[in-house]
Amino acid sequence: MQNLIMLTDLYQLTMMYGYHRHGTDDRRAVFTMFFRDAPGLNYAVMAGNEQFREYIVNLRFGEADIAYLDGLKQFDREFLDSLRDFRFTGDIDIIPEGTIVFPGEPLVRVDASLAQAQLVETALLNLIGHQSLIATKANRVARAAAPGQVMEFGLRRAQGPDAGVLGARAAFVGGCTSTSNVLAGQRFGIPVSGTHAHSWVMSFGSELEAFRAYADCFPDKALLLVDTYDTLASGVPHAIKVFNELRARGHKPLGIRLDSGDLAYLSIRAREMLDEAGFPEALICASNDLDEYLIRDLKQQGARIDLWGVGTKLITSADRSAFGGVYKMNALQTQGQLAPKIKLSDNPVKVTLPGRQELYRLYDAQGMAVADLIALDDEVIDPNRPLTIFDPQDTWKRMTLSGFTAKKLLAPFIRGGQPVGALPTLRQIQEYRARDEQTIWEQHLRLVNPTAFKVDWSDKLWQLRHRMLHEGKEESAR
Amino acid sequence: MQNLIMLTDLYQLTMMYGYHRHGTDDRRAVFTMFFRDAPGLNYAVMAGNEQFREYIVNLRFGEADIAYLDGLKQFDREFLDSLRDFRFTGDIDIIPEGTIVFPGEPLVRVDASLAQAQLVETALLNLIGHQSLIATKANRVARAAAPGQVMEFGLRRAQGPDAGVLGARAAFVGGCTSTSNVLAGQRFGIPVSGTHAHSWVMSFGSELEAFRAYADCFPDKALLLVDTYDTLASGVPHAIKVFNELRARGHKPLGIRLDSGDLAYLSIRAREMLDEAGFPEALICASNDLDEYLIRDLKQQGARIDLWGVGTKLITSADRSAFGGVYKMNALQTQGQLAPKIKLSDNPVKVTLPGRQELYRLYDAQGMAVADLIALDDEVIDPNRPLTIFDPQDTWKRMTLSGFTAKKLLAPFIRGGQPVGALPTLRQIQEYRARDEQTIWEQHLRLVNPTAFKVDWSDKLWQLRHRMLHEGKEESAR
Repeated sequence: MQNLIMLTDLYQLTMMYGYHRHGTDDRRAVFTMFFRDAPGLNYAVMAGNEQFREYIVNLRFGEADIAYLDGLKQFDREFLDSLRDFRFTGDIDIIPEGTIVFPGEPLVRVDASLAQAQLVETALLNLIGHQSLIATKANRVARAAAPGQVMEFGLRRAQGPDAGVLGARAAFVGGCTSTSNVLAGQRFGIPVSGTHAHSWVMSFGSELEAFRAYADCFPDKALLLVDTYDTLASGVPHAIKVFNELRARGHKPLGIRLDSGDLAYLSIRAREMLDEAGFPEALICASNDLDEYLIRDLKQQGARIDLWGVGTKLITSADRSAFGGVYKMNALQTQGQLAPKIKLSDNPVKVTLPGRQELYRLYDAQGMAVADLIALDDEVIDPNRPLTIFDPQDTWKRMTLSGFTAKKLLAPFIRGGQPVGALPTLRQIQEYRARDEQTIWEQHLRLVNPTAFKVDWSDKLWQLRHRMLHEGKEESAR
Repeated sequence: MQNLIMLTDLYQLTMMYGYHRHGTDDRRAVFTMFFRDAPGLNYAVMAGNEQFREYIVNLRFGEADIAYLDGLKQFDREFLDSLRDFRFTGDIDIIPEGTIVFPGEPLVRVDASLAQAQLVETALLNLIGHQSLIATKANRVARAAAPGQVMEFGLRRAQGPDAGVLGARAAFVGGCTSTSNVLAGQRFGIPVSGTHAHSWVMSFGSELEAFRAYADCFPDKALLLVDTYDTLASGVPHAIKVFNELRARGHKPLGIRLDSGDLAYLSIRAREMLDEAGFPEALICASNDLDEYLIRDLKQQGARIDLWGVGTKLITSADRSAFGGVYKMNALQTQGQLAPKIKLSDNPVKVTLPGRQELYRLYDAQGMAVADLIALDDEVIDPNRPLTIFDPQDTWKRMTLSGFTAKKLLAPFIRGGQPVGALPTLRQIQEYRARDEQTIWEQHLRLVNPTAFKVDWSDKLWQLRHRMLHEGKEESAR
């Protein structure tokens, strides 16, 4: 990845300049990234860590960047010169890629100088937000399609090249098994899939001729698109004819693809025709504006579809086009001490959580996740003693856990600007996501109206926030 | 831009291979890109031509690309070797960036060898589709906000880095006047804007101190964010105090920004407070999940907002996440002749238009656009003779034009693989878009329930399609 230091909002730079002028740029600050509850994002699949890490370790202002900023006539020479030595030298902790995460949880914790922590906000939200959005959507689609597999087909409809390539990566993390995107295959080792388009059929004198020509090139990978003229009257019969020819030559035909019409009806009829013709193992692949809801409905209506090609609605997360991640200051060095910070708002969901935080996932004896707990970083969660957790809004809702295990979810990622440890491969991330998903009860992952997973705050954190809210109100009146 | 030759779907390569094996890769083919009618896309602003041109002229398979494809074990050596010499050597015509376009119109016409025309499909749809989508959304937002200006703020919520940077470019084409995105500013010369975040205020001991510090750095660009604690009780009074201090030092304060709460109520009250304090020229900027509908409603409710900062919903085109462009074969060289081609479908809107086409915009004597006409490329539109146009579906809807002028919208873009002429600057494109918008009646650009702009077909094209539909049905029965 290129150096994306300029991939930021202007206000990050005007603030850096302001901190520099006021001598506060080197103060230690702690920020966290999290997302808020929203339909379609009751849970999310963490993704994008690898690209965020590349971004952090490559951060440099080049001469052309400094010259451009100089041309804006907003910054003084001394500040511009200081940018030459800018490096990210702080610490970052992050939830591993592929982890199932929930609204309000710290996903990324940046502990760095105020200037450094400020600058990285925009790219962090962009990179992690985009991939987590698509990984989540892909997970919903893959869960609806299972045991059928999902091929990611969306490059042509993605919001630019990166959205296609990084989106394919995120879709694989979330649960897709292949992509049509050759660049994503090349860059990330994702299996690539794809056969032919209507234009292939149109370029031959007849559909049968087109199918024969394709089977001739790919005798063991012939997945024939049968809807160019008339799916049941011509496409499927022509495919069966070619499959018989392939079989006579010792090959095993792969199957057919439906790309229009009523996919439930057509797949049921096509299945019957293929079975009757002696091709029960031929796969039926379907595409055409699919998403998790349509896949679920088609399956309920008896559709006989083995492979789902999902494009536009997955790669753009069509019903929820943004992750909506936010990045807020939790603590700032003040007179030598790291002091908690809070942002107030008339809108209660926009009030932030103060203090440097840790996130724990609590598991029962069977290894199922019971709740997540956000605590201050100096608290000790002792699984050998009963732990009472409570709902941060409805505090009378309480539960006492014993015999649980606690796992710290934020893991060291960057220390002093240097990467910590090797990154997992994309396949390892996918496998980790599949295992992590098994520890979450189904009701939290349901497509519609899921039960909220408990994300509670430690008593100490709750008390701190409560106190600061009241103090903050006084502050605002000063 | 890097060489994006691998930014394609695998099936483009399997088809290229098939064409190569069957010796049809060099046959001349004509494809067009168009989009279908959909809510929020009753009209569109053409965008992305520059990036598409860079893509075309840089197309080369590198050794690493060929090695990767070899590793897929689907292609023979001879084909892989032939990729070394692959260049795009065909012709492309395109509607100029910034033009107002309508559903069903040929936006891009590719006339090249079958293999070349096939390969470029995916990137064409991705690059032109994405930018046209965002330019269109930005145009709707800018039209709702006018005469207020719109600042594009969406980078952090964009679907990856390109979506942020190319999206900012498209938003400027569509009508935004600035972006927060520094990389987009640097790369495309878009004016950049931005001030400070809540974290700036939180990093100081008090809001007043934070405002003073900011005004000290940017005395003539002080746009202060007033909602960190309490907008009317603390934010606006503190801003006014600092504005008075700035004025006493001979500076002219810029204004305030609202980022939460009821923007209608708060802006009206803040306007009164600023006016009473003697700052009637101080601007009020507002942001917070805005789109064209909310801006229109806020204005109807008397909001006093001068500048609109629009992020997530613009940069992701939240209510319509994809342009839905398609790319279809219209003609193919057959026995030395370019023969028209059609794709059938049970769904009538998916039946394509056959033949190599031109697109004309017809203007009345006042210079207002009356209709667009798609004709075959050998037809002559003679403005000196009355022209009868008709609705392609409801053919009894007819209109005879006289005293009109006709403008060919598809312009030469690539000839023999080489770019034709210099590209306009981004500012020229924006100005062209503004002028072009003036030639379209308001009712076609309305946010809700616009009147469809007439996109008619020439009689000859209509007859050709009609005949081929019937022939095609016979073909499918073969």
